[in-house]
Amino acid sequence: MVTAVAPANIAFIKYWGKRDEALRLPWNDSISMNLSEAYTTTTVEFSPRFTKDEVEGLEGEEVARVSKHLDRLRKLKGNALFAHVETKNTFPKGSGIASSASGFAALTLAAAKALDLSFDEKELSILARIGSGSACRSIPDGFVEWKVGESSEDSYAYSLYPSDYWDLCDVLVIVASSEKNISSTKGHEAATSSPFFHARVEGINERIEKVKEGLKKKDLGILGPAIEEEAINMHAVMMSQTPSLFYWSGKTMDIIQSVIQWRDEGLPVYFTIDAGPNVHLICEANNAQEVSRKVRILPNVESVVINKPAQGAHLV
Amino acid sequence: MVTAVAPANIAFIKYWGKRDEALRLPWNDSISMNLSEAYTTTTVEFSPRFTKDEVEGLEGEEVARVSKHLDRLRKLKGNALFAHVETKNTFPKGSGIASSASGFAALTLAAAKALDLSFDEKELSILARIGSGSACRSIPDGFVEWKVGESSEDSYAYSLYPSDYWDLCDVLVIVASSEKNISSTKGHEAATSSPFFHARVEGINERIEKVKEGLKKKDLGILGPAIEEEAINMHAVMMSQTPSLFYWSGKTMDIIQSVIQWRDEGLPVYFTIDAGPNVHLICEANNAQEVSRKVRILPNVESVVINKPAQGAHLV
Repeated sequence: MVTAVAPANIAFIKYWGKRDEALRLPWNDSISMNLSEAYTTTTVEFSPRFTKDEVEGLEGEEVARVSKHLDRLRKLKGNALFAHVETKNTFPKGSGIASSASGFAALTLAAAKALDLSFDEKELSILARIGSGSACRSIPDGFVEWKVGESSEDSYAYSLYPSDYWDLCDVLVIVASSEKNISSTKGHEAATSSPFFHARVEGINERIEKVKEGLKKKDLGILGPAIEEEAINMHAVMMSQTPSLFYWSGKTMDIIQSVIQWRDEGLPVYFTIDAGPNVHLICEANNAQEVSRKVRILPNVESVVINKPAQGAHLV
Repeated sequence: MVTAVAPANIAFIKYWGKRDEALRLPWNDSISMNLSEAYTTTTVEFSPRFTKDEVEGLEGEEVARVSKHLDRLRKLKGNALFAHVETKNTFPKGSGIASSASGFAALTLAAAKALDLSFDEKELSILARIGSGSACRSIPDGFVEWKVGESSEDSYAYSLYPSDYWDLCDVLVIVASSEKNISSTKGHEAATSSPFFHARVEGINERIEKVKEGLKKKDLGILGPAIEEEAINMHAVMMSQTPSLFYWSGKTMDIIQSVIQWRDEGLPVYFTIDAGPNVHLICEANNAQEVSRKVRILPNVESVVINKPAQGAHLV
């Protein structure tokens, strides 16, 4: 019986659209930060006592997806035992916080260890990616880059900087904890139907350089605008897909407008948004309380969580 | 003393970005419908009694812009008299309802007549365009197309179908009657800074054909999706410009989400949005009351106006 913890991650440069559907190979490199307060804890046990895979804490299709991922690991071990899996998130599922990222990272690590497979970080990252693309970014420590690669063997994530490198915060604003209507898996498949998709891919390397420069210099004035531009760019692609994907709610839009106003008033904070209505406010630690205070007094905010950079997937 | 009335128009295919700044020549053809309940009434008198242009109903820069437009007409007449201008809108200024469109269309017609210049519709449309781009579309009757043209002389609007051709409605939902932060003139200038601008221009002719087919067949099932796609496409460009232009408020986003839901429930209605937070709901006349009823019970809706197709600029 092995338990692993893996963080969700917030992407500064996003993953949207797949070059290879089955292997979850992306169109572009992406960059993220692991989140200290949003994580999945997963316990896996393989035993002849089980007559089928049992998965607690997930439902329907998700259970089948877990089983399929366990099959990949069982095949590598040459072991056919069924497993009992128990998984818990610290945050609501399907609301734009990457539950599949932390989930498949934790599952990959716990199952590999339970099967006594000795994988290095790169191998774990590749396996996690096949389970759920951005899960590969929840394996390494702190600030992470996922390289497109040429094939499955070299499309994995690695740490750019450890979690204690920079006191950056992600003030996560939860406006809706209900599940979104369209899963990001379905959305990914239609990404190239946007007339803007290829212009996005063509322009992304310039923005990646800005994000890397901002991280290297620990300069939010360089990092922040690039993060925000990237979020807008991805959602513009989503909205212009067929069918249109509107992950934003009215509350999301109100927070976007507030952030722009706060910045005009001198508070250095930038927004980013994943495939859901919740908003991630990126600021330095010395401004996190002030950002959190300002957000809490907005109407319709369900909860606010201050995340710090976190270590990647690990055993407990 | 001459009085003219001109309607605002809602664009099914939008005008965003200028090939020629001074002459207001667009990058793409556009298509619009004149609005029966949103119009400007303008009275112009030229007289030696006036020692400067006097403009009632406008302020600041707008007064100078009117004077400059009168100069164009005075030059054509060889007349140097100053004018008294009085202008009134039936709707709030600067909130995404094209007040400059109806305003410059009414001003052009009234001033031309007051100077006894006998222009045909094409010439009036060209002059109105130089005053404010989309004003050229408020000159002709009903459903209108503005052709890019090769030069100023052939960039004008003409009627595709008269106002009584089809009982289409624009249920205008006003969520904010305050003036917007960024004028559309400034926004136009930065349009090409969006990485998506040229992809938009390249793809627009296909959408124009859909809009024309929908109008020809009086088929909202063809027209509606093309109108909505166009609105999303233009706002995706606006959001991804430098600096970002977010004309949508939280209320705008709530209405977008509601329209998608109503349509899923079987009500044939489509949204479009100009350079402001208000939402135009396009439906057939037999559904206008139902759409209006559903919109009125949403929170934060200031007012709702049902517009029919209207005749173009005319003297009263």
